[in-house]
Amino acid sequence: MDTNAPIKVYMTRKLIGVEPDDTIKRACEVMVEFDIGSLVVIENGEVVGFFTKSDIIRRVVIPGLPNTTPVKDIMSSELITVDSNTPLREVLDLMAKKGIKHMLIREGRRIVGIFSLSDLLTASRRRLETAIAAE
Amino acid sequence: MDTNAPIKVYMTRKLIGVEPDDTIKRACEVMVEFDIGSLVVIENGEVVGFFTKSDIIRRVVIPGLPNTTPVKDIMSSELITVDSNTPLREVLDLMAKKGIKHMLIREGRRIVGIFSLSDLLTASRRRLETAIAAE
Repeated sequence: MDTNAPIKVYMTRKLIGVEPDDTIKRACEVMVEFDIGSLVVIENGEVVGFFTKSDIIRRVVIPGLPNTTPVKDIMSSELITVDSNTPLREVLDLMAKKGIKHMLIREGRRIVGIFSLSDLLTASRRRLETAIAAE
Repeated sequence: MDTNAPIKVYMTRKLIGVEPDDTIKRACEVMVEFDIGSLVVIENGEVVGFFTKSDIIRRVVIPGLPNTTPVKDIMSSELITVDSNTPLREVLDLMAKKGIKHMLIREGRRIVGIFSLSDLLTASRRRLETAIAAE
């Protein structure tokens, strides 16, 4: 893994989102369907919020909210983002410091992708496969 | 990251557990407190079950179970484990094939640790810090 490479090399460009009035239940079904740990919340083509499985554990399961609650009630509206040219090492460092496992990636003012620890696994496996293929 | 190194180099030895009759709510509080994505279920000193945040999303939030449900109702009783001498590359491969992000590690018949993608991050950061220190 080249930790000096920009995060855009490792991020996922496909952002999977729900709408502010979608229910927690619907959001969870989308997470299961796509096997992802976080979702962006999109309104009029703009990312207005973000939440992870951990946020659902913390803000829905522990307080015992019904799964019919709209996602806008539990999403984070303050988005933590980094520029797509930030080196992987800086992103990992920032994630560790902030205790987060997903990072939104921006180009200019636009959110263009997401990086999660699963992407690290994918990259590690890809490198591994390259190494095996070269043997 | 040395993908030929045995998984015991990367795993976490501290297993954090709950009991079969503990509630989902209690289990979630433990997950939040220790910032972990999975828990073992322990009965009479033996690991009898396992579950992750994803299992809670799938088996509690989507069907709308109350957070007072005991963890024994939603835990996985069939444990997926690998021997602690299995190389990291094989473990990653197995995790990708099975679509899981946590793996229980055994020595003999005893479960002695857990490996998750967060450990990969820790290892990557450790290597990074070593590299920086050596500069």
